[in-house]
Amino acid sequence: MNYEHIFDQAIERLHAEGRYRVFIDILRNKGAYPNARCFAGHNGPKDITVWCSNDYLAMGQHPKVIAAMEEALNDVGAGSGGTRNIGGNTHYHVDLEAELADLHGKDGALLFTSGYVSNDATLSTLARILPGCVIFSDELNHASMIAGIRNAGCEKRVFRHNDLEHLEELLAAEDPAAPKLIAFESVYSMEGDVAPIHAICDLAEKYNALTYIDEVHAVGMYGPRGGGITDRDEAAHRIDIIEGTLGKAFGVMGGYIAADTRIIDVIRSYAPGFIFTTSLSPVLVAGVLASVRHLKASSVEREAQQANAAFLKQAFRSAGLPVMDSTTHIVPLMVGDPVKAKKISDILLAEYGVYVQPINYPTVPRGTERLRFTPGPAHTPAMMTELTSALTEIWQRMDLALAA
Amino acid sequence: MNYEHIFDQAIERLHAEGRYRVFIDILRNKGAYPNARCFAGHNGPKDITVWCSNDYLAMGQHPKVIAAMEEALNDVGAGSGGTRNIGGNTHYHVDLEAELADLHGKDGALLFTSGYVSNDATLSTLARILPGCVIFSDELNHASMIAGIRNAGCEKRVFRHNDLEHLEELLAAEDPAAPKLIAFESVYSMEGDVAPIHAICDLAEKYNALTYIDEVHAVGMYGPRGGGITDRDEAAHRIDIIEGTLGKAFGVMGGYIAADTRIIDVIRSYAPGFIFTTSLSPVLVAGVLASVRHLKASSVEREAQQANAAFLKQAFRSAGLPVMDSTTHIVPLMVGDPVKAKKISDILLAEYGVYVQPINYPTVPRGTERLRFTPGPAHTPAMMTELTSALTEIWQRMDLALAA
Ligand SMILES: Cc1ncc(COP(=O)(O)O)c(C=O)c1O
Ligand SMILES: Cc1ncc(COP(=O)(O)O)c(C=O)c1O
Repeated sequence: MNYEHIFDQAIERLHAEGRYRVFIDILRNKGAYPNARCFAGHNGPKDITVWCSNDYLAMGQHPKVIAAMEEALNDVGAGSGGTRNIGGNTHYHVDLEAELADLHGKDGALLFTSGYVSNDATLSTLARILPGCVIFSDELNHASMIAGIRNAGCEKRVFRHNDLEHLEELLAAEDPAAPKLIAFESVYSMEGDVAPIHAICDLAEKYNALTYIDEVHAVGMYGPRGGGITDRDEAAHRIDIIEGTLGKAFGVMGGYIAADTRIIDVIRSYAPGFIFTTSLSPVLVAGVLASVRHLKASSVEREAQQANAAFLKQAFRSAGLPVMDSTTHIVPLMVGDPVKAKKISDILLAEYGVYVQPINYPTVPRGTERLRFTPGPAHTPAMMTELTSALTEIWQRMDLALAA
Repeated sequence: MNYEHIFDQAIERLHAEGRYRVFIDILRNKGAYPNARCFAGHNGPKDITVWCSNDYLAMGQHPKVIAAMEEALNDVGAGSGGTRNIGGNTHYHVDLEAELADLHGKDGALLFTSGYVSNDATLSTLARILPGCVIFSDELNHASMIAGIRNAGCEKRVFRHNDLEHLEELLAAEDPAAPKLIAFESVYSMEGDVAPIHAICDLAEKYNALTYIDEVHAVGMYGPRGGGITDRDEAAHRIDIIEGTLGKAFGVMGGYIAADTRIIDVIRSYAPGFIFTTSLSPVLVAGVLASVRHLKASSVEREAQQANAAFLKQAFRSAGLPVMDSTTHIVPLMVGDPVKAKKISDILLAEYGVYVQPINYPTVPRGTERLRFTPGPAHTPAMMTELTSALTEIWQRMDLALAA
């Protein structure tokens, strides 16, 4: 048994496929997003513009968020010092759970250390509480949902992306008496499309299934109060469990679910991923509280972001760049090859000071490698026009196809 | 299929066993640890003394940590805005990984959002990279290691706690050619005892097994630089993977592993729990950097904490209280019943302003419910003497046995 050899082979496979990942080393400049300093491979930091942040609304630099975190830091200190049950249940946690429950019109909410952990812990625990449970999962569901479903050890049926007929076929094939759960996302973050939420809820009612929606890329972003697509589409009351992150539009870090108190209490009491871990730092929780409260009342950030996303899609389309069919704030450009996607990204960084990460397998299926742009409210029209010219130049230099 | 009924039953079981958990709602007072405000069940906050924090050295209120977090907050903002691969790799992350690698004398380190996630992600990924792997796991291993091992889907052999003979018996019974990994802790946090690290490494060498140690309750606390028990016992070079938390002695939040660069690169490249999640907030990372650097150079906090733990153990012993046989900084008192443990804790909080959480199943085995005290460097001899009197009074009031 030669461990080193096996580890070397595992890494070699990534190099051979052109998908070995190199992390770009940056510091964002608070007050000047999307500006940042880039460290790796340069003498001293170099100025760049970030085009791939999931801090979609730049709430990570919002004065209210910064002030709230500073206040908490000086009032209660850096960490919580314990799990939620043992010394780590701060008043901020209690307040934020109430705020998030209200955001989604639910009776309760539960915080986790990340959106990943909220999906993994909730799905795996739910299925263990419901013996014989079958989970119906959209084929493009995020890795964290896939992990939760696998870790549940229950039966799983994968339905084709957003395909209601296929979902119904699978639902109808199961024992009507078996517990069922349909797990899907609202905004699919690598495609930019949206699930048919009401139609999925219709099927859930018909077949007596629970519904679980990942609104990670939609909370803060959609709906009059930022409650996500379920807020915009008035569907929250039809969903049993809404899951979200505090690390994207809310600009900080952490994850949560919102649901009726019965479900919240079950997950709170049984999920190892919730129970056996130091709770979120109160400094983060205080920042999120400010962020959620602000975005409940203000739509300025959402509107500016949507306007910029529309502008950038149009600019790409006019230049003949292969922008994908997104109906949301996400602007993906299809490349279809990991080596080319990385090369474009490298040129953008080295020659244009533009940072956009290439997206490769396993984040997206092989052969659909892409660049994914997320213009925020602070990207200017001039930046977007320059970016479009840069991409057009690179597309020509690399002999990639442009639409007529 | 009546979902509500099943959920209600799950909660009912907890009430029936007396282990339904109620979280105490507090805010610690920075600059005045172990003092805190308690909210739940009172009119306005009430002053309490926290006796169960895992911020063992009060680094969560250390001026260097607070200053570093304040600086990062104002320089780069609240969150990282992305996964490590997509926009969330800040210069702080790079620096902290180098600092942690150095702390353990390893070539590399890798940050996770928590210690729980570092155990779960690393163990499950390692075993999947090594087909046919058998994991040997101490029976008292933490829930996060158990999760990682179960999620690996590999063969698992549980050895009796710290029992070298049993471990060897299990190792000898396996195919010598099969990949093997021994997973254990250094300080077992609910007992306060320590693993025989060198002897386990001897067995690992004899049977060609990898070694994985959880130093969550030891990093920052033991060894001349706070590298843990492996630092104190000069065993770090014999361990393949050292795992730790940033949320206990370091006072903030997050987790990590330290290992050779080959193993780090494999986990970095393959572990979903590392890849698909927003990276730690740079504010937290900056705080941890200050904390780790401070505790590498200063032993004042460690020594004060050890002195207080010894003082409290002696005080409990002299009063005849059933203090468990701990060889570390942890001071557990055996109660052996969930209802009584909760009652003692309730009286302490209501009548004495003392907060210590009862520890029940599944954190410890049924019938070994206990109170677990973690005096920090800021608990005074007067506080410890008062606590001992309070416990003696309650022990008598409740007719519990005191040693002669
Ligand atoms: C759809 C989806 N769900 C969950 C997550 C995980 O959330 P978090 O980053 O808070 O762990 C992500 C991305 O990170 C995601 O894209
Ligand atoms: C032994 C052990 N390992 C791992 C963890 C998890 O670490 P974290 O709190 O950083 O998630 C804990 C406690 O929380 C623990 O006690």
